[in-house]
Amino acid sequence: MNIQVLKNIFQRNDNAARENRELLDSTGVTCINLLGGAGAGKTALLEAVIPTLTDSLRVAVLEGDLATTKDAARIDALGVPVVQLLTDGGCHLTATLVQQGLQRLPLDQVDLLFIENVGNPICPANFDLGEHLRISVLSVTEGDDKPAKYPLLFKDVPLIVLTKCDLQPLTDFDFDTVTRDLRRISPEADILQTQARKGIGIDSLSTWLRTRKLRGSPYPVGGRQHEG
Amino acid sequence: MNIQVLKNIFQRNDNAARENRELLDSTGVTCINLLGGAGAGKTALLEAVIPTLTDSLRVAVLEGDLATTKDAARIDALGVPVVQLLTDGGCHLTATLVQQGLQRLPLDQVDLLFIENVGNPICPANFDLGEHLRISVLSVTEGDDKPAKYPLLFKDVPLIVLTKCDLQPLTDFDFDTVTRDLRRISPEADILQTQARKGIGIDSLSTWLRTRKLRGSPYPVGGRQHEG
Repeated sequence: MNIQVLKNIFQRNDNAARENRELLDSTGVTCINLLGGAGAGKTALLEAVIPTLTDSLRVAVLEGDLATTKDAARIDALGVPVVQLLTDGGCHLTATLVQQGLQRLPLDQVDLLFIENVGNPICPANFDLGEHLRISVLSVTEGDDKPAKYPLLFKDVPLIVLTKCDLQPLTDFDFDTVTRDLRRISPEADILQTQARKGIGIDSLSTWLRTRKLRGSPYPVGGRQHEG
Repeated sequence: MNIQVLKNIFQRNDNAARENRELLDSTGVTCINLLGGAGAGKTALLEAVIPTLTDSLRVAVLEGDLATTKDAARIDALGVPVVQLLTDGGCHLTATLVQQGLQRLPLDQVDLLFIENVGNPICPANFDLGEHLRISVLSVTEGDDKPAKYPLLFKDVPLIVLTKCDLQPLTDFDFDTVTRDLRRISPEADILQTQARKGIGIDSLSTWLRTRKLRGSPYPVGGRQHEG
């Protein structure tokens, strides 16, 4: 009986995810699901990279959190559309909740949508939200054992962003160990080293996002006019 | 139907938790459930504090992880009994899994049992394992917004350990903000600042653990002879 119900939960999620993807495709929005543990630096990364994109891409954000609007307020300060999705204690975003968020965004005026998932290295990786790709975030202060301990977080992602790299000399974090473990999990993934607060690595991330080919074609960079 | 099944899951867990607590009580073992996000520094804290306790307390550890035995190997190096509990991708320990771990420990030769939960700031807080108290761990590198964002992690715990405090000057982490937010969530909790690798704050933690009164009486410190 448990298994049946869990199947239903996943099936309901997957149905909503498929609907989300169809909606995003039909409105020309590329959607990225940003995953990582609490404090990995996902919001800081968005704060740093979004201003480098908005000259030619119309960006929006869905912010996942359990109970607060702290992160949405930080994104709102960048002047891009943002909707806070509250899970009410839930440990991951669901496609159904994302569906509600999509209804509140002006999708016909968006090229690139980031979904910042709940800060949790485990559960979010199990739920398709209808995104086109995932980016996984790992801070050096979390420790270099984390790819081996949380492999699903880094599996089948095209990009892994290492954050807070300025703090590495003060930790035991070994870039070689992490790169080797990540290569084992996602052999094709790009790995970027960043330090969001000082802007280090943000240009590389920005270039990656602008040139990334999705579904056989690149983003509509410059191909659509800003309307806002 | 979903609700009924979830009720069953919690009820099964709570039954096992009650049995665990009865077993621990009957064998005179005090059990601490150590909670915190991935990379909060729970294992490093155990590595630092256990050697300060073993002169008069017989310590054992149950190590929770999704897939690896990395943490158990670190604890094993301290020379105390340890059992690795693998959740096989699950995001929290259950009382049932802990029950299996307890069967593999020489409980009649243990005074103090640490259960290190899966690194996850959300799900583990919802599951009673049969412990006598919880200690929550937060690293300064995770950010000072975490108590507000993950209140359940810090609720009804007698002790919150802040870790990696040496890195605070390199972050925006504000001790006043965190202390104020933690006081709101758990007014009675003690808050300790530590840096495990240099041993800072570890004496205070050790003293706290030795003198903590549980169920009306202190640990059997020195009251039982080592047999191992």
